[in-house]
Amino acid sequence: MFIDDTIAAIATAPGEGGIGIIRISGSDSKTIADKIFKPFYKNSIADYSNRTLIYGNIIDKDEIIDEVLLAFMKGPNSYTAEDIIEINCHGGFISVKKILELVLKSGARMAEPGEFTKRAFLNGRIDLSQAEAVIDIINAKTEKSHEIAQSQLEGSLSKKIKSLRKNITEVITQVEVAIDYPEEDIEFITYKELIDKTKAVQDEVIKLYETADTGKILREGIKTAILGKPNVGKSSLLNLILGENRAIVTEIAGTTRDVIEEYVNIGGIPIKLVDTAGIRDTEDIVEKIGVEKSRQHMESSDLILVVLDSSRDLEREDLDILENIDKNKTLAIINKNDLERKMDLSQIEKYMDKENIIEISALKNQGLDSIMEKIKEMVFKGKISNDSELIISNSRHKDAIYKAMKSIDDAMKSLEDHMSYDFVEVDLKDAWDSLGYINGDTVSDELLDNIFKNFCIGK
Amino acid sequence: MFIDDTIAAIATAPGEGGIGIIRISGSDSKTIADKIFKPFYKNSIADYSNRTLIYGNIIDKDEIIDEVLLAFMKGPNSYTAEDIIEINCHGGFISVKKILELVLKSGARMAEPGEFTKRAFLNGRIDLSQAEAVIDIINAKTEKSHEIAQSQLEGSLSKKIKSLRKNITEVITQVEVAIDYPEEDIEFITYKELIDKTKAVQDEVIKLYETADTGKILREGIKTAILGKPNVGKSSLLNLILGENRAIVTEIAGTTRDVIEEYVNIGGIPIKLVDTAGIRDTEDIVEKIGVEKSRQHMESSDLILVVLDSSRDLEREDLDILENIDKNKTLAIINKNDLERKMDLSQIEKYMDKENIIEISALKNQGLDSIMEKIKEMVFKGKISNDSELIISNSRHKDAIYKAMKSIDDAMKSLEDHMSYDFVEVDLKDAWDSLGYINGDTVSDELLDNIFKNFCIGK
Repeated sequence: MFIDDTIAAIATAPGEGGIGIIRISGSDSKTIADKIFKPFYKNSIADYSNRTLIYGNIIDKDEIIDEVLLAFMKGPNSYTAEDIIEINCHGGFISVKKILELVLKSGARMAEPGEFTKRAFLNGRIDLSQAEAVIDIINAKTEKSHEIAQSQLEGSLSKKIKSLRKNITEVITQVEVAIDYPEEDIEFITYKELIDKTKAVQDEVIKLYETADTGKILREGIKTAILGKPNVGKSSLLNLILGENRAIVTEIAGTTRDVIEEYVNIGGIPIKLVDTAGIRDTEDIVEKIGVEKSRQHMESSDLILVVLDSSRDLEREDLDILENIDKNKTLAIINKNDLERKMDLSQIEKYMDKENIIEISALKNQGLDSIMEKIKEMVFKGKISNDSELIISNSRHKDAIYKAMKSIDDAMKSLEDHMSYDFVEVDLKDAWDSLGYINGDTVSDELLDNIFKNFCIGK
Repeated sequence: MFIDDTIAAIATAPGEGGIGIIRISGSDSKTIADKIFKPFYKNSIADYSNRTLIYGNIIDKDEIIDEVLLAFMKGPNSYTAEDIIEINCHGGFISVKKILELVLKSGARMAEPGEFTKRAFLNGRIDLSQAEAVIDIINAKTEKSHEIAQSQLEGSLSKKIKSLRKNITEVITQVEVAIDYPEEDIEFITYKELIDKTKAVQDEVIKLYETADTGKILREGIKTAILGKPNVGKSSLLNLILGENRAIVTEIAGTTRDVIEEYVNIGGIPIKLVDTAGIRDTEDIVEKIGVEKSRQHMESSDLILVVLDSSRDLEREDLDILENIDKNKTLAIINKNDLERKMDLSQIEKYMDKENIIEISALKNQGLDSIMEKIKEMVFKGKISNDSELIISNSRHKDAIYKAMKSIDDAMKSLEDHMSYDFVEVDLKDAWDSLGYINGDTVSDELLDNIFKNFCIGK
């Protein structure tokens, strides 16, 4: 792929902050910067060494737009492996916007989401799993998910995939020898070796695949909905959860209030609270969003906390909720256990396992631990998370590994059934291809577009 | 003031973005950076020239925290005039947080809001009005307010204040001569000169003062509330206003949804919409927040848009609102003029001036121009805004200029009444002091604390 044009974007998060950065990448970066930048102490960017932060003004005709630090980073030793200009200006909304407009007017085009990182990949500086790690690092909601992404950026997954594919290639070579020279004695040795080697690859792929569920949760968070009829204490539960854990609020579309996401970090697990704006504003999500929508919420959530008031009898509205939940992903939170018990808990056991019923008093700040223990148990499924283990955190990788796993299963089966080696070869090649999707050795434009559209602009 | 310790903070806006910056300032900056940074190509920061972006890893013991670009800027040629380290890491929440924590653990202390800029002031690199311009640039909501702040940062206000104070000093010197050598003939010449010179200063100060109302609006925005009974079209009006003007949303406390501010840029005037979250969510602000709170909204707003439905008769609820508004800051927006008219507009004229009644059809996208023209008229009060004019945009500066103006008025009065020159001298010195508050020549610790506490952390 030949990359010709020069792209630009704001590279810092939108909002009020001390510093904002405009990034330009491509062969015209320096030419564009020369048009709009006037250093204070020398004549032009060329008078400074590569990668020096140069103090000066951004100028539009005679008007000073902002006082900035500008750096030129000559390719290929840069983020994109192209010539890069970075302009550090005052933060906020207007400076960055005015400078970006000026840069675009001077010959750059607006970068697409993730286009800088895409160029780093296309120019061969990083592989695809490393490119994906970049966005995971930025989106990380907890230190654990950050760590997984950081290790992926360093190439831990790339190395693993490379080594797996190398092993598969070796098996394929032996299969091809067996096909081409089908003498009995060679085949005998090859067969045993083939079984062993394929089994070894299979074991590794399965082990990798098994980390994916935990990895996905650590990366994307547990989408959690709090449901319950009015006045059972949904807000209090929310406050209890938010209490000691500062929430991270992400606004997705920039102007629409509806799609705010809120993350709370509970013992390294990001809990993504669904529509908490609704809960906070009206104290009553079910009432507000209507039964139909709360059913949708239930379906799309990974975890549902149904709040019940133990100081009252179970009522029709409680049962409406309990009858509609998926008990495999629901915890019943029995609130107000500081008050006299009226509710018959055995009634609730009709709808869900006893161990998923948790008594708390949101008012007295009691019971958060039990909820969190339970959530951790659900996430790690009783397995202790091993810090040094390579974890698959991306669904795309999971899918690719799943396909590879299936192909290797098929190859093993063919081997065990003493089928023709041609079948074995096809299956192993499929597995090799599937794994190649992860680091981008096997890749289509469509796949790339799909991956990078989820990036933020400016990365 | 002796500044000894080394401070650090995140300098970019919080949120997901490509790049985040951690800034360290003070004599230990480099020592701290050396502890946590490992360049890829050389041994340490000292091996690179000043102001070079160095590629390397941030390391905590053996763990790689992030891949970064780090620059050392030796004082006094830096933002604070101290040794500065800036670390450009991956954006998002976790990288910046982890690196900042590591920096703090390694010997820096967390910077207070605006402390970097405060140091730039205390170290004499910029004056106080320039320091204040920094935060105005960051907070600017429109290009016009950005321009005012930029010109202030360049020193336009500093120069003006310096020149005014110089002129006052000259008058004071002449007054002192007249006091010390009260011979008749000297006095005669001095008196006429004194009157003229004082008058000249007075004119300039008044002219400056008169820009302050417009300046305040351009800087802070017009706080605007949309009121009206249910179903008159408040949401539609809001959408009409937001339609072509992308809104800037600022979240103030980070976790509380209640204090979101929303700005729309209308012909260079920032319109700050009050509680639009409320309007959007429930379609009905009055209903939702209750009469008492909507009264508070009315009082604290600079502009109220009362929406009425012309296809219905005026009802009790409409009158409730109309009876309670301050007609000097209210526009009646007569919506739905695409439908058959039922409302008697002359009824509304009992509550407000005819020229402040504007007919629109939010549905048909009609009438926004008239509303905006009216708002502009209210802001600029019929005066054409002169682009080259120095505008006072900060209430603190306005207050200082007001005090100076009063003192000069008193001095003029004393002169005209042929009072003792001692009185004149005292008043002129007061004026000189008041103006000194603007650029920080006259300044107290309290004043400084008050100014910088409004900055964001990291600037």
